[in-house]
Amino acid sequence: MITVLAGGVGAARFLTGLVQLVKQEDLTVVVNTGDDLDLFGLHISPDIDIVTYTLAGIVNDEKGWGIRGDTFNCLNMLKLFGEADWFNLGDQDFATSILRTNMLKNGATLSQVTAKVSHDLGLRLKILPMTDDKVATYVQISEGFVHFEEYMVKRAAKDPVLGVKYVNVDMARPAKGVINAILSSERVIICPSNPIVSIGTILSLKGVREALRKTCAKKVAVSPIVAGAPVKGPADKLLSGLGVEVSAFGVAKLYADFLDGIIIDSVDAVVEKSRIEALGVKVVAGNTLMKDLATKVALAKMTLEL
Amino acid sequence: MITVLAGGVGAARFLTGLVQLVKQEDLTVVVNTGDDLDLFGLHISPDIDIVTYTLAGIVNDEKGWGIRGDTFNCLNMLKLFGEADWFNLGDQDFATSILRTNMLKNGATLSQVTAKVSHDLGLRLKILPMTDDKVATYVQISEGFVHFEEYMVKRAAKDPVLGVKYVNVDMARPAKGVINAILSSERVIICPSNPIVSIGTILSLKGVREALRKTCAKKVAVSPIVAGAPVKGPADKLLSGLGVEVSAFGVAKLYADFLDGIIIDSVDAVVEKSRIEALGVKVVAGNTLMKDLATKVALAKMTLEL
Repeated sequence: MITVLAGGVGAARFLTGLVQLVKQEDLTVVVNTGDDLDLFGLHISPDIDIVTYTLAGIVNDEKGWGIRGDTFNCLNMLKLFGEADWFNLGDQDFATSILRTNMLKNGATLSQVTAKVSHDLGLRLKILPMTDDKVATYVQISEGFVHFEEYMVKRAAKDPVLGVKYVNVDMARPAKGVINAILSSERVIICPSNPIVSIGTILSLKGVREALRKTCAKKVAVSPIVAGAPVKGPADKLLSGLGVEVSAFGVAKLYADFLDGIIIDSVDAVVEKSRIEALGVKVVAGNTLMKDLATKVALAKMTLEL
Repeated sequence: MITVLAGGVGAARFLTGLVQLVKQEDLTVVVNTGDDLDLFGLHISPDIDIVTYTLAGIVNDEKGWGIRGDTFNCLNMLKLFGEADWFNLGDQDFATSILRTNMLKNGATLSQVTAKVSHDLGLRLKILPMTDDKVATYVQISEGFVHFEEYMVKRAAKDPVLGVKYVNVDMARPAKGVINAILSSERVIICPSNPIVSIGTILSLKGVREALRKTCAKKVAVSPIVAGAPVKGPADKLLSGLGVEVSAFGVAKLYADFLDGIIIDSVDAVVEKSRIEALGVKVVAGNTLMKDLATKVALAKMTLEL
């Protein structure tokens, strides 16, 4: 059994490689829900949908989110009504959020919704939201705190980051199965996702970090930082905003209390390897840029063999 | 000032003629909401949307409902999730219902939602839901009572009708402005809509029938029954199921306690005119089949001149 901690696009791409090597039935993916938001009265779970659509083979590969070939007629009509026009959601994508909102209203948990959607899209692995409770990641900018999606999408991640908070995280419990998956797995893989607002959010949940320290599983991360910059997204702004070095070393340090090993990109090997190993974390260097399926599979292979 | 009592497609087509002759600002349209239903957790108001889209010039003319050129990607995805697959709702149409549901959740009335949608679609007339409370029209068939839309769409109006009930009508109040519009208008027009499940629902609301009897307005109906059959829809099944004669006379009799005049089709003139006049209702015969804009305008003109 393998447990994977995942954010959005980076994690989803990594997972497409991993499922080539590991039976879906042996995989539990714990997905960040700190980006979840309520728009148009609908519960939207960006990272869960990205992971689900990507593994189901229906994601819009170019964008990394949404469904390939989807139309945007519902959203355009909502714009005509003056509704939030900064968040993109295709017509098929709306269906997922409508289903989710309605199931939640009728008493289902987010875990149950997530299981139904992934099952109906033909997946056999277990996708778990990190929590069934509401946790929201807020980013502090000069104007105050804004929801992560607002920071990321509406404001195009342009503001310098002054801080991050995970709203309601103290009240939230990990979803049923999360702690047990970590404790009973042979291997826990931390995806090349944002260490602050994806993985960091999962780690901030009560009991998760403790479980990672306690489990006998090998804990292996993939650095999302290559040559001092994130492969995708605003991880650099978030890391430096929180005083964390924007490097594979900086990432390894965030996970050092539980991490056994980390895959870093070959371009960082000379500078980073010895620094990270000084943290007590094994290092394997290789190609971490997931350009095609072959490189994704090769990267997944490294995480399984380290 | 003119007040119009309206159902769905027949009313909407009639109104496209009327707005050629009357300033929108002088029109109040009171629309049946007994067909409203909750599907996918969304509040759907079929008749309000049909009237609004038609007057806004964006309706799918062929079907009579929905938006011209709309796609059905959201609905198809919901079908994949095993959700109700008998009700058709296009992607843009979903936007209206999402907006409505969200506004209602945030405390707006259906009247406020309806006003916003019609305003945003460029209309200047006042469209009022018959009530801001929940009223649901149920049709009794051999298996029991089913929601009107289920009878009409899911079961294709095939079942013999044993009865009709307007659920919650005793608790519902006419929306703000409905009674006053009837009392203060010069003319009240009853559209060629289903006399049982469109107009009948409006008339069943506390105070509406009394206001129609009391008002000094001229009250003029257009018969939706031509040559013993409805122009569109299942009015014949509903009328005969309730023991009402399926004829212009049958319709006039339902409204006779308040009606001043009725427009019937020329084909019915010989048989129906004297029978209806015996009820104390004036009769004008003409072409009531609204094939094109010219016949719609001519029909509207008759209702204004009677």
